[in-house]
Amino acid sequence: MVQQKEETIQIYRGWDEFYHQEIGGKLDIFSKNGRLFDVIFAQQFDRSFLDSMCSLASQIRLLAKTKTGADKLSGLLNHKRAMLYFVQPSTRTFISFLNACHILGIKTSEIRGTTTSSEVKGESPEDTIRTFASYVDLIIARHPVEGFAEKTAWVLNRTERPVSVINGGSGPDQHPTQALLDIYTLERSFEHIGGLDGKKIAMVGDLKRGRTVRSLSYLMKNYRDIQLYFVAPEVFRMKDDIKDFLKKHDIPFFETEDFASVKPVVDAIYMTRIQKEYAETPSKETDVYPEFHITRDDLGIIQSHCIIMHPLPRRYEIEIEVDNDPRAVYWRQERNGMWIRAALIAYLFGVDEEIMYEFR
Amino acid sequence: MVQQKEETIQIYRGWDEFYHQEIGGKLDIFSKNGRLFDVIFAQQFDRSFLDSMCSLASQIRLLAKTKTGADKLSGLLNHKRAMLYFVQPSTRTFISFLNACHILGIKTSEIRGTTTSSEVKGESPEDTIRTFASYVDLIIARHPVEGFAEKTAWVLNRTERPVSVINGGSGPDQHPTQALLDIYTLERSFEHIGGLDGKKIAMVGDLKRGRTVRSLSYLMKNYRDIQLYFVAPEVFRMKDDIKDFLKKHDIPFFETEDFASVKPVVDAIYMTRIQKEYAETPSKETDVYPEFHITRDDLGIIQSHCIIMHPLPRRYEIEIEVDNDPRAVYWRQERNGMWIRAALIAYLFGVDEEIMYEFR
Amino acid sequence: MVQQKEETIQIYRGWDEFYHQEIGGKLDIFSKNGRLFDVIFAQQFDRSFLDSMCSLASQIRLLAKTKTGADKLSGLLNHKRAMLYFVQPSTRTFISFLNACHILGIKTSEIRGTTTSSEVKGESPEDTIRTFASYVDLIIARHPVEGFAEKTAWVLNRTERPVSVINGGSGPDQHPTQALLDIYTLERSFEHIGGLDGKKIAMVGDLKRGRTVRSLSYLMKNYRDIQLYFVAPEVFRMKDDIKDFLKKHDIPFFETEDFASVKPVVDAIYMTRIQKEYAETPSKETDVYPEFHITRDDLGIIQSHCIIMHPLPRRYEIEIEVDNDPRAVYWRQERNGMWIRAALIAYLFGVDEEIMYEFR
Repeated sequence: MVQQKEETIQIYRGWDEFYHQEIGGKLDIFSKNGRLFDVIFAQQFDRSFLDSMCSLASQIRLLAKTKTGADKLSGLLNHKRAMLYFVQPSTRTFISFLNACHILGIKTSEIRGTTTSSEVKGESPEDTIRTFASYVDLIIARHPVEGFAEKTAWVLNRTERPVSVINGGSGPDQHPTQALLDIYTLERSFEHIGGLDGKKIAMVGDLKRGRTVRSLSYLMKNYRDIQLYFVAPEVFRMKDDIKDFLKKHDIPFFETEDFASVKPVVDAIYMTRIQKEYAETPSKETDVYPEFHITRDDLGIIQSHCIIMHPLPRRYEIEIEVDNDPRAVYWRQERNGMWIRAALIAYLFGVDEEIMYEFR
Repeated sequence: MVQQKEETIQIYRGWDEFYHQEIGGKLDIFSKNGRLFDVIFAQQFDRSFLDSMCSLASQIRLLAKTKTGADKLSGLLNHKRAMLYFVQPSTRTFISFLNACHILGIKTSEIRGTTTSSEVKGESPEDTIRTFASYVDLIIARHPVEGFAEKTAWVLNRTERPVSVINGGSGPDQHPTQALLDIYTLERSFEHIGGLDGKKIAMVGDLKRGRTVRSLSYLMKNYRDIQLYFVAPEVFRMKDDIKDFLKKHDIPFFETEDFASVKPVVDAIYMTRIQKEYAETPSKETDVYPEFHITRDDLGIIQSHCIIMHPLPRRYEIEIEVDNDPRAVYWRQERNGMWIRAALIAYLFGVDEEIMYEFR
Repeated sequence: MVQQKEETIQIYRGWDEFYHQEIGGKLDIFSKNGRLFDVIFAQQFDRSFLDSMCSLASQIRLLAKTKTGADKLSGLLNHKRAMLYFVQPSTRTFISFLNACHILGIKTSEIRGTTTSSEVKGESPEDTIRTFASYVDLIIARHPVEGFAEKTAWVLNRTERPVSVINGGSGPDQHPTQALLDIYTLERSFEHIGGLDGKKIAMVGDLKRGRTVRSLSYLMKNYRDIQLYFVAPEVFRMKDDIKDFLKKHDIPFFETEDFASVKPVVDAIYMTRIQKEYAETPSKETDVYPEFHITRDDLGIIQSHCIIMHPLPRRYEIEIEVDNDPRAVYWRQERNGMWIRAALIAYLFGVDEEIMYEFR
């Protein structure tokens, strides 16, 4: 009995120690039998994984075009149930995950809200999560608190009946499926010109606080001969941690405030929101930094194969008139999010091989 | 490139011009290959369409009675996904559409709320809608702003990947599926006595602001030998636009405040809510206009085949004791809404013929 | 016509009379053809029903372990639609019912909220419920008003198209499916040592207000040789109505404030929340009654087969370190709620025999 007690009291002990170690030391606990079990950090993705997710997403996308293929997909995980626990509102990510589940036939439960008050009735967030884990086979969590999804997965992995956890965004820095969809969009857009390897990519706007450009920069280590252009006003420059990382991995990057000089040169332009404050209504035109926007006039300047990306929602960064240009891929990028999330979920439930090789 | 730019800058230009033209000039853009693609106005429905929707709704209703039939139905559109975007709360219409989707096996996503704040994060309503269109195959929208569904469909039809839009109610005048369910209820109730043609219909209550009675009056042009009785206090009389329309189409109508004289004469009584103000609690009995109500005593006065309709919710207009009379069809009318919406959705996805002729 | 009127005016008349009679006189109206049609009170369950529900829940649980079994289950009621009407927030019960429906393939609609304002627009709660009944085949209702589910079922049973109603919790005393899951957990935990008959059960905490322990005590009349231990501070003692009931049925019970003396003796410990006020943050340690808690130290004191239950959410009553002990069954108890609710719903739709005897 004593031995058992020794074990049990470890449950929530050790979290702080776990949490504050280097990320490299954390990854094992979120894998089982050589496969990812939980998806918490973009750092869990290596080239081989990224490649297979992109192939799987494309396969799912193609299958979904026909009723026969779509019916096969939606019968695959018909017996599985997922919980979407979105404490932080994010309609876009929510709807994307929800429909990714539906494509695979997974039944879904939803908690959406800005407060957790009605959920918890005074119970701990860990108990709330264990409750969800009682009813479903997968938890997709979005939460304003950094490390929330990580702790969720960590706690569940210590129970006798863990279920997979996908981080749908926790705090300012972790949003791994956004990074996945960006990679998929780049690879898919360049599939007839050699893929992402060897491309020049501009990231534009608020690079300091931009979660997406930070994750994407990090993942560039998986690709060959990438060149990055960081285009931002002084005050929103990319932070040193990412730049140090790029130097360490010999990935060349250039920093500039001169967007005009970069436009004709690059293969992809990744736009992000930029404004002086996160207020709803900027008071002055210059508050939205028009020199870091894309307008219809730029369509004659950028290369004929140069794609324009944006994580959306946009505000002033891209003129509406740009939308119908075939190089404006942000709407497709959004839709790619659904396909790559379907791929990720299919992988977590172990039906990736079946989709790739048996569904002909 | 210049030519392309010329095209792209057309996208949101032209909306005001489009919106303010006569409705007759608008209809083409919401059709494709001779079939409705979006359902925005009751004016899109002609007799042939109304007849086929009624037949399809009845076929779906009959099929749904057996497990075999219901299973066939729910496999039909199993590969499709719909978004119910209900900015304006309306539980009744929402649940009706939701279950119509479920009958056909369509997977559903929901946005429900009185504010759009959490959805949009400062993005334009058009971008929000395009986002939904990225993930689903059909958008059902209800919105307090007149013209919202119309603009949604118009914008999407200019993209490379439009999806169908159904107007679930926009502003004070457009609610085409309510008109459909009213027509279906009338046709179904009279199916053994020659259908809706040749019938006398009383519309009672607040005819001035009543969206349902206005749309229904309009659709009467599709039927032969209809006579309308507008029963309302002076202050809530039917507006001139509808009366002018009826005169133009030679549809006789009678206006009166004397409900008692109309009751024994008509084949259908369409009741609507009526009260002095739209306040929750009328201060005086006369504020709710009891002379425009139906009570148990009326059941001995109306004809044995005369149906009593109401769009619901009711307040004081119909005594509860009337509910169990077989001529009180308002609960069935509500349920008819689900069947006719299922029919409409099946039609939009092109499976109407399959349901009518192959499912035996 | 007169005869018909006589009938119709009965509809809402008689509710008060019905409601205030002894519970024994009420049960017939909630049954049809010798089977339960609505599930409103724990008093509707007899031993034979409880036994068959437990068997059915276990069968569903086993079937759900394989894709073949799960697919069979989810095809069973694919043609049915349920409404979860949760005016009173309760995430746990809600998600449990929702996933129970999903296991059986039932399509679900949800109303969740603390107010009904957006639902009703001034209509009566009875009309709102009739509206739901128009669209679905089953209503699961949770409401803060005592008797709400009962009235719902009573009203619907007087219409020409009643649908089953399950009480998901109404007011302070009725929550029959919680009682079912408690029974199932006891029976399942003791399945290798003779089941629930003959066991000693301690109920600990706030027994005065605790809905679960009151219902469970009541149901003990269905089992042989049960002994109950009511462990509570003076101020939270079990009320006389339950004690009178137990005496009448010759079920021995012991009342004590000395939890320590009870721990080594019993086969099951049913913990409940206990604190001085229902405030969020108790001001003093003694406000939470630590002498009525379970800690890791108790794991060496209780019997090796003694299970620890809790209806959850917990606050201070059970130390987290207890969770991983195999005798701590409260997480499994929660999950049992989903299985027994699936069983109950399967029974209401008449597919219980098919699940038990044909699915091999």
